[in-house]
Amino acid sequence: MNMTLVTKPHDRLAAALSTEMAEVDLLIRTRMHSDHAPRIPEITAHLVSAGGKRLRPMLTLAAAKLCGYQGEHHLGLAATVEFIHTATLLHDDVVDESEKRRGRPTANLLWDNKSSVLVGDYLFSRSFQLMVATGNLRVLEILANASATISEGEVLQMTAASDLKTDEDIYLQVVRGKTAALFSAATEVGGVIAGATPEAVAALFAYGDALGIAFQIADDLLDYQGDSGATGKNVGDDFRERKLTLPVIKAVAQADEAERAFWTRTIEKGQQQDGDLEQALALMAKYDTLAATRRDAEAWAAKAQQALTALPAHEIREMLHDLAGYVVSRLS
Amino acid sequence: MNMTLVTKPHDRLAAALSTEMAEVDLLIRTRMHSDHAPRIPEITAHLVSAGGKRLRPMLTLAAAKLCGYQGEHHLGLAATVEFIHTATLLHDDVVDESEKRRGRPTANLLWDNKSSVLVGDYLFSRSFQLMVATGNLRVLEILANASATISEGEVLQMTAASDLKTDEDIYLQVVRGKTAALFSAATEVGGVIAGATPEAVAALFAYGDALGIAFQIADDLLDYQGDSGATGKNVGDDFRERKLTLPVIKAVAQADEAERAFWTRTIEKGQQQDGDLEQALALMAKYDTLAATRRDAEAWAAKAQQALTALPAHEIREMLHDLAGYVVSRLS
Repeated sequence: MNMTLVTKPHDRLAAALSTEMAEVDLLIRTRMHSDHAPRIPEITAHLVSAGGKRLRPMLTLAAAKLCGYQGEHHLGLAATVEFIHTATLLHDDVVDESEKRRGRPTANLLWDNKSSVLVGDYLFSRSFQLMVATGNLRVLEILANASATISEGEVLQMTAASDLKTDEDIYLQVVRGKTAALFSAATEVGGVIAGATPEAVAALFAYGDALGIAFQIADDLLDYQGDSGATGKNVGDDFRERKLTLPVIKAVAQADEAERAFWTRTIEKGQQQDGDLEQALALMAKYDTLAATRRDAEAWAAKAQQALTALPAHEIREMLHDLAGYVVSRLS
Repeated sequence: MNMTLVTKPHDRLAAALSTEMAEVDLLIRTRMHSDHAPRIPEITAHLVSAGGKRLRPMLTLAAAKLCGYQGEHHLGLAATVEFIHTATLLHDDVVDESEKRRGRPTANLLWDNKSSVLVGDYLFSRSFQLMVATGNLRVLEILANASATISEGEVLQMTAASDLKTDEDIYLQVVRGKTAALFSAATEVGGVIAGATPEAVAALFAYGDALGIAFQIADDLLDYQGDSGATGKNVGDDFRERKLTLPVIKAVAQADEAERAFWTRTIEKGQQQDGDLEQALALMAKYDTLAATRRDAEAWAAKAQQALTALPAHEIREMLHDLAGYVVSRLS
């Protein structure tokens, strides 16, 4: 039996990069530490040390290795990327909690808000110190621009999420901010720090961008078709939270007058009642938008794989290829 | 009548730097703009465009001018410093509001929380892009370290503010994070971008650090002795919000057993009742801690003025000297 067929691409990447990932983990734990504010590691420990998938730092390490990098700065950049990701999660928590428990947060929840904001800022500042330590201005420029795209995307999502005027272009901007900007920055800085050619760097950017978009579209699709055991989410959470994602955007675009009134009531006005989720799913089925969304995700995954052809043949390149395929293989 | 005696030093600085400040204002308005998220300028406009004192960006411009800088990067750095300041204010709002209205924020308040977190992040990312544009790694290092000090200080304040074990050393760390770190970074990067000697850069750092500390101690003192018309705050706000500041820390350090029980009840446990503020003021009077606090502020202002003697004679240097004196002149 061929190992490449039975092991998930993510796990094969983790195995190929295990030495470097151990150093990144150590760096993360060290830099999280604060002499002045011992509370910080307490709060971040469960987020950063819990050993999540660590997909983003792995992308940086993979890109650098694929481009033959021999130095050590890729470790700091991988930690940078994970810190930015974690800080974003912390700030998202504040935003999401405010929405979900509108009007009655508990005292404990508020304490968490304080911690989330300030410790998120602390992680941003730590990531900033780590990237400055590379001494590479191009790397700093890429990460500064990614940060701006991420925060613009978050603000855009705040206003666009429940607005029926949100079309596929705006959705794509939100997705780039939410997911793809950090993926593409992660792969791009790996190439830049390795001194790769402009063509290779552009290919790494294109791979990360397309992979991130495929990843987020898949996530949004699974919200409507996943089984809650596998995803940890309930089917229709995005509908209940009035978040316009691609399957609904495609249905809204084709809606007749009565259907449009339904989407206006449930998403824009948030007046939901029993049976609405079933009705939403029926409208998505009527226009076959789940299948169309899956095709979009697959097209982005194919685009990611296509970008890799500009890079040198390497076992890591094959793993990145398989990773893009795996992201959408969950969908069918 | 001598103009230098009747005009506030801050206004004289603003007049001497008016051309550059106009360019900084323009830069701030331009960089605040977001094509993707038009909501951003709405939210920040009242903060950034309202034409506050702009003390921090003025310090950067002043330092660069004092060191004979002829380029344009000081403008971007001044805008950077103002963006960091504004982002910090936005994130502080989230933190302070959660405390003040514990348990019952309004929906409007929550919307503000979301906006405050995300738009604060946006301003941080914009400031990051502006500083990268200088192409000066030492500047980036200074601002990265200042960011870390600021966010560590905020987290430290969160845990230390109502803890009677907080002594003058911890208070100073909090003050550096809250105020002095951005003052000293503002003056230091002005010197660095101007290519000043290491001695001059160190003097600018020392000036900003001491000025920031004097400024914050003065602010904390005015909370107990100011008239609310001038400061916009009510006497004793810090006491009601259970914030340990220098006048109280000095009283706690000399407290007998009964007094310590009073501070434990009112600050640590937050069980306040009518007459407590008067009792707190009486204890501060008993140990004359308001006068001792004023002497501390004056000593830091003198230290700031002393630091300036290492810098070239210049009308700007005189204004910075007078500014340090002015910060504490409000106290007597």
